[in-house]
Amino acid sequence: MGVLDECHYHVGVENGVNVEVGGERGAIEDAVRVLLLGLGEDINREGLLKTPLRVAEALRDGTRGYHQNVKGIVSGALFPESGLESTVGSAGGAGGLVIVRDLDLFSYCESCLLPFQVKCHVGYVPSGQRVVGLSKLSRVAEVFAKRLQDPQRLADEICAALQHSIKPTGVAVVLQCSHICFPNSQSDLNNHQGYVRLSVISGSGAFDDEKAGIWTDFLGLLRFRGLTADATRSLEKSWCPSRTICKTPPASDPSLLAAVSSILYALGEDPLREDLVETPARFVNWLMNFKNSNADTKLNGFIRSSMRESSLTMAPSYICSELNLPFWSQCEHHLLPFHGVVHVGYYSSGRAISSVGKSLLQSVVQFYGFKLQVQERLTRQVAEAASSILGEDVIVVVEASHTCMISRGIEKMGSSTATIAVLGRFSTDSTARAKFLQIIPSSA
Amino acid sequence: MGVLDECHYHVGVENGVNVEVGGERGAIEDAVRVLLLGLGEDINREGLLKTPLRVAEALRDGTRGYHQNVKGIVSGALFPESGLESTVGSAGGAGGLVIVRDLDLFSYCESCLLPFQVKCHVGYVPSGQRVVGLSKLSRVAEVFAKRLQDPQRLADEICAALQHSIKPTGVAVVLQCSHICFPNSQSDLNNHQGYVRLSVISGSGAFDDEKAGIWTDFLGLLRFRGLTADATRSLEKSWCPSRTICKTPPASDPSLLAAVSSILYALGEDPLREDLVETPARFVNWLMNFKNSNADTKLNGFIRSSMRESSLTMAPSYICSELNLPFWSQCEHHLLPFHGVVHVGYYSSGRAISSVGKSLLQSVVQFYGFKLQVQERLTRQVAEAASSILGEDVIVVVEASHTCMISRGIEKMGSSTATIAVLGRFSTDSTARAKFLQIIPSSA
Repeated sequence: MGVLDECHYHVGVENGVNVEVGGERGAIEDAVRVLLLGLGEDINREGLLKTPLRVAEALRDGTRGYHQNVKGIVSGALFPESGLESTVGSAGGAGGLVIVRDLDLFSYCESCLLPFQVKCHVGYVPSGQRVVGLSKLSRVAEVFAKRLQDPQRLADEICAALQHSIKPTGVAVVLQCSHICFPNSQSDLNNHQGYVRLSVISGSGAFDDEKAGIWTDFLGLLRFRGLTADATRSLEKSWCPSRTICKTPPASDPSLLAAVSSILYALGEDPLREDLVETPARFVNWLMNFKNSNADTKLNGFIRSSMRESSLTMAPSYICSELNLPFWSQCEHHLLPFHGVVHVGYYSSGRAISSVGKSLLQSVVQFYGFKLQVQERLTRQVAEAASSILGEDVIVVVEASHTCMISRGIEKMGSSTATIAVLGRFSTDSTARAKFLQIIPSSA
Repeated sequence: MGVLDECHYHVGVENGVNVEVGGERGAIEDAVRVLLLGLGEDINREGLLKTPLRVAEALRDGTRGYHQNVKGIVSGALFPESGLESTVGSAGGAGGLVIVRDLDLFSYCESCLLPFQVKCHVGYVPSGQRVVGLSKLSRVAEVFAKRLQDPQRLADEICAALQHSIKPTGVAVVLQCSHICFPNSQSDLNNHQGYVRLSVISGSGAFDDEKAGIWTDFLGLLRFRGLTADATRSLEKSWCPSRTICKTPPASDPSLLAAVSSILYALGEDPLREDLVETPARFVNWLMNFKNSNADTKLNGFIRSSMRESSLTMAPSYICSELNLPFWSQCEHHLLPFHGVVHVGYYSSGRAISSVGKSLLQSVVQFYGFKLQVQERLTRQVAEAASSILGEDVIVVVEASHTCMISRGIEKMGSSTATIAVLGRFSTDSTARAKFLQIIPSSA
């Protein structure tokens, strides 16, 4: 598998990136301003003023692995540990397989610059009567995750670095990766899969042969009983949705492409590296989904001209709901995606909204989603638009996962956010609110 | 609830600790050496040589909140955000409740110095047409978690700090805390609960009244539908097992108590603060569970004299197992607990071991657990001892959660480790290993 090739490892992985060349933070900030202008945004708007700085800091932090050295991590954390004394077999510092399971990492996709999540499992077979501190397996994995990556390369680099620095009988790495996948605006949002998932493996030494019994032990202890080594080897490089959905990205504004290239360069990467050549085009193509269309007026006009569903003489008295309307958006503070679902409640005299009304509501959600946003504003905008369709008594709950909450310093993997807007009767009647909140299905 | 008392907040929370007095790292290292000697350990043993340094670094990192200032975190992250324009109600920057759910934190228990895990949920009601960056809610919570804490105080401090720095209509905090609970050596290990759990709430402003409708909204969005505000308020301070199990810790060696006091002082705490007065006694009492008894010989003698279960003339041919034998141990690299289960497999001619053999096996596991350990060594030692009870063909799997993997820099909350030792036939027969691994129940 080539992962044991120490020379390649040294030159290609540890020192192959031009970390010294990586420009000042200013270069990234300038590039982000170009991209914001390309999105039709006012870069002096208060919410965006510090966005270039935040993006630069997040990217620096997310690719800090380029400046980290594995040797410094492992050295000093190798401990003498006996094997078996007078018995046949393997244990402790001589052959006793050690596995650390379920390490949560995130990395940046080199094809599209979006973060992807990784559930990482690392194992090794100690030799030479010594073991490594367990946390070092996590720290080494982290070094390579914090770079622009592809899942298979990430697995191979973690494997090679551990083999090289610990020099054990063998190393095995299994990664289960999830890449956010945005819908095409055209495709059916409701059937859209939010993530592309890919599992990859890498092994060296005793794990070089994927048919070896030690792989069975490793996978057995991971409880991937249905998962064979064969099934997990990644054969194609194009797991990134931006590669599969659109093989050749359409031509983009050259100044935007140059801006992304300058970001790659500032991070210490070579924008001409084969796997990065089309990254600027893919990133720009994706980012422009969120172009500010300034079409508020158009949408409002459409809503006002559509039939009001609740134009009734008597006060409507039943709470109706439209739940789990999916949305996709881009955090204006970090230029990172957030996505989730919108729940809308309203009063009706017993009749739910028509399918026209329902699809109009989904259009509203999609319209306010696809731009630079903050969740609080999205919630208010959807509530105001919904009220012009559904009447003045409206409650809107938005539940979302924010990439910026997992992929920067705070790294709160399982966190989610909820925001609420209450109009008319819902703002004064806490029993009505409680009734509506009860019917929202648990997202767990 | 007093959490809005800004003066108290300023003096007591932000600046009440003597951060300037906090001594050099050397003081903590010296104290750890005293404790290691008290455990009967050789402080020059290679595995322990850097333990004082590691403990000092982990404690510094785990209490770095003493040196952090909330104001610097929130200022610059308040963004203008409109409320509703022409409708009655609350939304966006004027009254639209915002919640961040499921933030994983850990903190240090001020009663016993062990880390405890926290699932943190924070909400606030924006006012003045401005909202705070979502990640700041997490960062502020982190500042107070990274101190010696008690759950209710932690909730109150997070709440007060957010109220003070954001000045919103109200702030609500719900914490679900889990404290590791070690068994008494005497008690029944199999019925032992591994964690004490406690939920606490704190509210200010609009959340001051725990009967207010806004609390219903908040808890509704947290989906704690069975959990009322009443049920979550902590009435007693003694959630820490070291307080409930043993109200007055027994007298300990004064030099060990002085060592722990000097650690508290070096971290910037006042060892004479009411809630800390008995902490050294509790910590020392707990730590001495792991005193090195040098009783290896005694145990081995016991095992050798016990009846060998598999003294048969024909080769035994069935794989038998003893699964989920619980153990509790102390990581010798970080002086932090790790615990989990041991699974033992062996060959038999069809007869499982007697209840005497089973309880002997549990004694072996408990004996090798209760000391400064590394998981790899524990696995080997249990395998060697098991083989003197069960015959030469033995397989041992240890699955564990390491506090040191969650409570220091790497903070990998969901991670777990697995180690394996294979003796005799199990070391050469991968089918036998696979058979045994299949019967281990999933620990999910």
